[in-house]
Amino acid sequence: MKSRDGKDLWAFFEPRSVAIFGSVKDGMGLACGVIKNMQDYGYSGKLYPINPSGGDALGLKVYPALDDVAVTVDLAVVITPPPTVPGIIEQCARKGVKAVVIVSENFAEANHDGARLQQQLVDITSRTDVRIIGPNTVGVLNVANGLVTIPYMIGYRNIRKGGIAYCSQTGIAAAQCQPLGDRAYPISKMVDFGNKCDVNEVDVLNYFADDPETSVVAMHLEDVKDGRGFMEAAKRLTPRKPLIILKTGRSEAGARASASHTGSLAVSDRIYDNALKQVGAIRVSTWQEYWDIPKVFAYQPLPKGNRIAIISHSGGAGVVAADAASEAGLAVANFTSPTLDKLAKLTPRLARNPIDLGPSLSVSEDPFVIQEEVIATALNDDNVDCATIVLYGGVMSPTQFTVEMFDRLKQRLSKPVTIWVYGTSLSLLEEMSRQLEERSLPTYTDLETAVKALGALVQYAEFRRGLNLT
Amino acid sequence: MKSRDGKDLWAFFEPRSVAIFGSVKDGMGLACGVIKNMQDYGYSGKLYPINPSGGDALGLKVYPALDDVAVTVDLAVVITPPPTVPGIIEQCARKGVKAVVIVSENFAEANHDGARLQQQLVDITSRTDVRIIGPNTVGVLNVANGLVTIPYMIGYRNIRKGGIAYCSQTGIAAAQCQPLGDRAYPISKMVDFGNKCDVNEVDVLNYFADDPETSVVAMHLEDVKDGRGFMEAAKRLTPRKPLIILKTGRSEAGARASASHTGSLAVSDRIYDNALKQVGAIRVSTWQEYWDIPKVFAYQPLPKGNRIAIISHSGGAGVVAADAASEAGLAVANFTSPTLDKLAKLTPRLARNPIDLGPSLSVSEDPFVIQEEVIATALNDDNVDCATIVLYGGVMSPTQFTVEMFDRLKQRLSKPVTIWVYGTSLSLLEEMSRQLEERSLPTYTDLETAVKALGALVQYAEFRRGLNLT
Repeated sequence: MKSRDGKDLWAFFEPRSVAIFGSVKDGMGLACGVIKNMQDYGYSGKLYPINPSGGDALGLKVYPALDDVAVTVDLAVVITPPPTVPGIIEQCARKGVKAVVIVSENFAEANHDGARLQQQLVDITSRTDVRIIGPNTVGVLNVANGLVTIPYMIGYRNIRKGGIAYCSQTGIAAAQCQPLGDRAYPISKMVDFGNKCDVNEVDVLNYFADDPETSVVAMHLEDVKDGRGFMEAAKRLTPRKPLIILKTGRSEAGARASASHTGSLAVSDRIYDNALKQVGAIRVSTWQEYWDIPKVFAYQPLPKGNRIAIISHSGGAGVVAADAASEAGLAVANFTSPTLDKLAKLTPRLARNPIDLGPSLSVSEDPFVIQEEVIATALNDDNVDCATIVLYGGVMSPTQFTVEMFDRLKQRLSKPVTIWVYGTSLSLLEEMSRQLEERSLPTYTDLETAVKALGALVQYAEFRRGLNLT
Repeated sequence: MKSRDGKDLWAFFEPRSVAIFGSVKDGMGLACGVIKNMQDYGYSGKLYPINPSGGDALGLKVYPALDDVAVTVDLAVVITPPPTVPGIIEQCARKGVKAVVIVSENFAEANHDGARLQQQLVDITSRTDVRIIGPNTVGVLNVANGLVTIPYMIGYRNIRKGGIAYCSQTGIAAAQCQPLGDRAYPISKMVDFGNKCDVNEVDVLNYFADDPETSVVAMHLEDVKDGRGFMEAAKRLTPRKPLIILKTGRSEAGARASASHTGSLAVSDRIYDNALKQVGAIRVSTWQEYWDIPKVFAYQPLPKGNRIAIISHSGGAGVVAADAASEAGLAVANFTSPTLDKLAKLTPRLARNPIDLGPSLSVSEDPFVIQEEVIATALNDDNVDCATIVLYGGVMSPTQFTVEMFDRLKQRLSKPVTIWVYGTSLSLLEEMSRQLEERSLPTYTDLETAVKALGALVQYAEFRRGLNLT
């Protein structure tokens, strides 16, 4: 049996050369889609389109067969009719290709014929060194080197480089379906597992545990192929890096739906829940949390405790945040007397937590000065471990002023913060979020998730303290 | 004691004339803010700025005192220093003004002096006919006639006219803080209760129960001033119209935070929960749900049962939706044999629920034809009561084609649907949402809420069936 230590996964993410098997018809076939995306994202390795047609495509020579390529090929991407795939993988193995992404669909997820073909792929991987991601996948994306195996139009070129590895069991979590340009999540690499005929969550956890460019792993799972292997790999990862898991198929109906398209067995959700707790993974429950929670780890330090300061423009929002804090295992901090005195000197009504800046800001000559002072005062309180800050972003409050305030605050803050921006224009809010996140300030479109993100930080910090890690 | 039957609230929403007390300095004071917003939203009643300065503001004559206005004034908006407010309300009462919105802050929410002043307001309302909303409020907004009492810059003019009345206990839920132009919720009227010195949730529930322009009431509450009155008013409303409640201060920390800014008493959340169930209100738990759930009632019919069809482009999304359905009290429908046969004829793998259109669409000549047929087939199944439809909106799928598909489908659909659109460009998704909602198709930015909205519809339909209403 192959080692699942992740060491041979490098060829999926850092290949020096890639062969692409598939249609290059009129420069429009799916193989051309992959090439186009690689070019858009700036991949600088060698690309070898393989198609019996020969000729040229997108400025590249098309090779009739893999054997016609004279040099070593690290990675192959295969988008050909299913019956042709096993033969292609055999060629790849013979040629010394290390890694293959099989994009083609209609394998085990489709019907018995597909399952038989998929078994042939498993047989090849068990007797050769080739590793396979897929089939039925869009494969991988590496933000650092522009490698991308997605054959579909993505529609944007800018993905922010950062520490999150997103690993998912569904193509809808990949770049061609997600607004990664607009949302600007800080991403290292992405993987779509597909049918997991070979590479699965175990390999991937082990690979990302060692990947220096990845500091957080986010994983969407419908099933786990090898429970013991998963537990071991997760236990190896979590002391080093946080692991955020969205496990779907929680309900009976969900598990049934999952079984029908992945062939996975229904396992009681409580078993998953306990296992994930045991390995120190952080379980999230919604699709949006899968995307939004990991960035807090990429951008912010871990807190020393669970006491939150809530700094808002609105009493109503303060109450919403306090509820969310309770539900996320956070305690609304009791400020120390020096803090209360300092706040009261600014305006008597500020001296409580949640802080409602609204009345003070509306009568202030320079609201950003008060806001800045309040944020610094609250976060420097010994009874405070973290803070959620509510910001108004809109016509009355230019983004530039807010951003400059945080630039000044930077030296005065060392504890984790999350931000909720609200306002009247979605495009202004998105722009403000992007600018704040460029400054490593995780910014959310809803208040409860901003608070919950701190809850996740606290949960992971406590897990590390339990292991005597600091 | 005054009747709280809501009948005298008309002057807040449909005044023929409005006096505005406050600063008109350099055309920039807060009174001018109100006038400017009224002009922007097209209010056609008479406006009378009142300020000892006299002169002109924004093209209107400024009256030194209310008594200088010769005609009847229905509504007054007061934005003056707190000590001046009781005297102004006395003048209003003498002059026969029916309704006053007190925007001024620093009453009971601020300190003891403010509480004393607020008590004076209560005294005036108890011995005169004048009704007060506030103090510490931005008041009301009526989409139909452009009446708006908000003094702050709103930043957009287009609010979609529709059936939802949003009533909230915090100014952050009002138009100057929310992207109502971008999100296009279908709104009839909005109220910010403020300190509730007179008009409170009881009056408002009774008013909206009778308001022909309102078909759904969404209410954010931190406290209830009169529990029995609230229960009675809610019981009167819910057989006619759905009532969606976001009750915050659920947690001890939240209740404490609420008490500190509203002076409300902490009441166990379970009491609220039971009371809301008893009156048939639908309780939501997040700020976003408060905004997003009501529109399903404004746009869609009630379902006959709880069986959902899930029509997705992705097996993974289908599982997420199935989990959300279970958690929202929905059953994933078992299609009848004729439906399964019909789907199988299109493509064998479509014949299950959740339906994963992905593999069929990616090989289809005209994916919109298949999608249309599948949606109609699933929704016309006798075992199906409602559906959540997942749509890709983006560079590869022009909004126009999707919208045209639903225009064709319109005649074939009679059961409630909700939609989740996903894709790579937030602005394209927003545009697609707006266009679908122009066609009364409630569209969500996250899948779980799209499903949960159907759960809310089902809950309300069951409540009505329990009362033998159809």
